[in-house]
Amino acid sequence: MAQFDNVSVKKKANVYFDGKCVSHTVLFPNGTRSTIGVIFPSSLTFNTAAPELMEINSGICKVRLHGEEDWKEYKTGEKFTVPGNSSFEIVTLETLDYVCHFE
Amino acid sequence: MAQFDNVSVKKKANVYFDGKCVSHTVLFPNGTRSTIGVIFPSSLTFNTAAPELMEINSGICKVRLHGEEDWKEYKTGEKFTVPGNSSFEIVTLETLDYVCHFE
Repeated sequence: MAQFDNVSVKKKANVYFDGKCVSHTVLFPNGTRSTIGVIFPSSLTFNTAAPELMEINSGICKVRLHGEEDWKEYKTGEKFTVPGNSSFEIVTLETLDYVCHFE
Repeated sequence: MAQFDNVSVKKKANVYFDGKCVSHTVLFPNGTRSTIGVIFPSSLTFNTAAPELMEINSGICKVRLHGEEDWKEYKTGEKFTVPGNSSFEIVTLETLDYVCHFE
């Protein structure tokens, strides 16, 4: 599915980490929301409030969840989950295009 | 109006000029479309196919349309139009957040 239908979308972008991450917020009829965005090549740490499901539209990243020792690689078409009230480190060597669902 | 309702939105971002411009495409029920995005500080030239209406959500830019001598400044809440099959130069000294409507 290349697009979300019957949604609301906030006009203003979310810009984090000096522009290393840019996203737009999508609101669904059931009250949930996602952000769709890109992460430019960088090494960042994201903190989570709600649990997140990250889907990779394109690109490759390495991810290490808080409290874990190992890094895992995710690429186009793959996804990973992050617990709420936690954090994850992410390294992108090329621009990552993603959808992040908040639960 | 801070958001678009009852629209479709493409999941994948449009990334131009080595990441200086990042946008997402919004599709309206009447068949028209807009892009919502940001332009990081830069000096860029955009070519137009369809006529465009650019609305500035935040930031300041200077714009010179193809064939014009003078630069005009636009800031938060202002808008400008660009003819189809033309171009415009845009200079942003701070990150510009915009909505671009295609006619």
